[in-house]
Amino acid sequence: MRAPLMLSKSRIEALSDGVFSITMTLLVLKLEVPDMMHHSSNEEMLDQLLALWPAFATYVLTFLIAGGFWFLHHLTFHYIRHVNGVLLWVNLLFLMSVSLLPFSAGLMSHLFIHHVSQYFYIGNQLAIALLLSAHWLYAKRKDMHSSDDPKQISQLTVRIYSFAGVFIVTMIMAFALPAWSWTPLPAFLLGALVFEIFRR
Amino acid sequence: MRAPLMLSKSRIEALSDGVFSITMTLLVLKLEVPDMMHHSSNEEMLDQLLALWPAFATYVLTFLIAGGFWFLHHLTFHYIRHVNGVLLWVNLLFLMSVSLLPFSAGLMSHLFIHHVSQYFYIGNQLAIALLLSAHWLYAKRKDMHSSDDPKQISQLTVRIYSFAGVFIVTMIMAFALPAWSWTPLPAFLLGALVFEIFRR
Amino acid sequence: MRAPLMLSKSRIEALSDGVFSITMTLLVLKLEVPDMMHHSSNEEMLDQLLALWPAFATYVLTFLIAGGFWFLHHLTFHYIRHVNGVLLWVNLLFLMSVSLLPFSAGLMSHLFIHHVSQYFYIGNQLAIALLLSAHWLYAKRKDMHSSDDPKQISQLTVRIYSFAGVFIVTMIMAFALPAWSWTPLPAFLLGALVFEIFRR
Amino acid sequence: MRAPLMLSKSRIEALSDGVFSITMTLLVLKLEVPDMMHHSSNEEMLDQLLALWPAFATYVLTFLIAGGFWFLHHLTFHYIRHVNGVLLWVNLLFLMSVSLLPFSAGLMSHLFIHHVSQYFYIGNQLAIALLLSAHWLYAKRKDMHSSDDPKQISQLTVRIYSFAGVFIVTMIMAFALPAWSWTPLPAFLLGALVFEIFRR
Repeated sequence: MRAPLMLSKSRIEALSDGVFSITMTLLVLKLEVPDMMHHSSNEEMLDQLLALWPAFATYVLTFLIAGGFWFLHHLTFHYIRHVNGVLLWVNLLFLMSVSLLPFSAGLMSHLFIHHVSQYFYIGNQLAIALLLSAHWLYAKRKDMHSSDDPKQISQLTVRIYSFAGVFIVTMIMAFALPAWSWTPLPAFLLGALVFEIFRR
Repeated sequence: MRAPLMLSKSRIEALSDGVFSITMTLLVLKLEVPDMMHHSSNEEMLDQLLALWPAFATYVLTFLIAGGFWFLHHLTFHYIRHVNGVLLWVNLLFLMSVSLLPFSAGLMSHLFIHHVSQYFYIGNQLAIALLLSAHWLYAKRKDMHSSDDPKQISQLTVRIYSFAGVFIVTMIMAFALPAWSWTPLPAFLLGALVFEIFRR
Repeated sequence: MRAPLMLSKSRIEALSDGVFSITMTLLVLKLEVPDMMHHSSNEEMLDQLLALWPAFATYVLTFLIAGGFWFLHHLTFHYIRHVNGVLLWVNLLFLMSVSLLPFSAGLMSHLFIHHVSQYFYIGNQLAIALLLSAHWLYAKRKDMHSSDDPKQISQLTVRIYSFAGVFIVTMIMAFALPAWSWTPLPAFLLGALVFEIFRR
Repeated sequence: MRAPLMLSKSRIEALSDGVFSITMTLLVLKLEVPDMMHHSSNEEMLDQLLALWPAFATYVLTFLIAGGFWFLHHLTFHYIRHVNGVLLWVNLLFLMSVSLLPFSAGLMSHLFIHHVSQYFYIGNQLAIALLLSAHWLYAKRKDMHSSDDPKQISQLTVRIYSFAGVFIVTMIMAFALPAWSWTPLPAFLLGALVFEIFRR
């Protein structure tokens, strides 16, 4: 009977899809076209492009991780029936962290050998993961989700928490083994892909 | 019986969601990645990041205020049944003010100790709030909204006008107490959040 | 019976709403935040902001004209029932001209006293108007629109062609009276707004 | 009975439409407004604009090719009924390649006489075409598409593979006849347009 409970989830999904697609597309602006001259040789140009590899690696990693967050966010709204004001605020904070990614990625791609960049980048991803967990925890506690399929829902819960877990591990590694801190991220993405292909 | 009355509201919602999500995501472009060297120390880099705090504060504040405007705009269209040409023009002016936010935020984050930046930033937010009020006032006067739930509708009216009121107070403070003019904004956001959590 | 005739119009509308909302929001990036120092006085800063007036005027004008094109495009799809491959291509060319607007606006706002900028800016708007006319002409000729309301449809046709007419007049004025060439645009926008308010 | 099979395709379409519309609109940011002075003559300004022709040609070409990819992607989802996790990952990789286009176009428009830029640009387009083919191949192999209209579906398959074929030919030409490597692209676009107009 209350206004916030009557909120349709479709426009929150529209805003979220908008923020995700723009954030993911803005990542490309952190790839700067080399400022070459026409008389530069092909070898010089190839060298310039190859020197951009940290930026390319950050682009691919950040795009796919953001895609993973979008996927899990998408799945939560598959089960969520109602939306209220609190959930909307948690979603805004979640989207605010998502849309910070181009900055974090820019920091990471230029300066990824610095501890501070690593903490910032991983901290940004961790904040997204924790806000996604809070969003799902709140929706479940307030019985906003459908309960048709408890097995699927508990599986989704495991997925969301394991995403947060990966970033906690990555953060610990950034302190202990900074040179290898990024390794859990592609490993996790590859694992998630293999999981999708082989699950029956 | 007239064409403008036959306008579906779905595409205006789509344009609005698009403008809001892009504006909110473009705010991040005002956060410039520090132009550091690889041989800079971690301490230097941390200092550079910490020096960006006015830009970060402006980012968080502007994102959440824009989210609040999006939420209220969303709620008005929850009740609005028809759309005509005038309402569409008011909405265009509203969206034009919203999409000016990255400029205002850029001005504020670089130069927020100047009175002129404060007037511009708060004036931009006030213009958005007044155009949202005009949009809702017009829709109510022309009986374009559903009247199923008068209590909810009057509650929404109070919310929209109080949003405008906060920016009028902030503007007055910018003249009288410029050093504290920004304080009503986070106070209001926090209050709105607490209100959502504790209302029953 | 053919695939292109089975195309739903909803995704073309989604792509169009996306291109319009992004284009309109990107216009703000042509407003550059003045590069002032902290020790600049308020007067210096106000002067800097006031010196941006051609950019602000171009922003407002271009945003509202683009909003007008979006509105008319929206109305055509209100009546169009089917979409085929040719219509889709015409729409792509239309959207390509729309998304060129941030460049034309940037040219106009920096250099609007040059004839060349005026021809380019007005030519861009004229191209959009002509492609919108072609889109509507094709849809009507191929009987893709509903014929429920012939009066409304002929009214829309008049509107679309008069939009193109305004830009033809503006273009002629850019040759004959370059200093006044921009005047038909705000006059037209104001006229359209007054028309919406007073029609019964 | 499994969660991924229950995924609605509407939000993947929304994310895709978002990424496509933003990518296509961001292309304009690679067209830099000439940095002229107010006292420059009209002739100087015209020369500056004409000197941008490679950037304009790249803009038009890339926008229309991206539009073609959007169209084919749109058509595949017209026939696809279910979506699972693997298809979603293939789509993310597809969208990641699409959103790289502003970088490739920037490289091409500044430096298109270099072999390396050509390989990169054509390679980007080829990657998009191959991922689109993989997406469609996977959906067909897993019987995710409707089988109402086998003739239409096989026609779409031919279209998707021929798009990939054009980029393979273009890539070969970039090695053999670099000065003419771009020619198949406008020829193909023109051919596709003529095909749409004259098919009965």
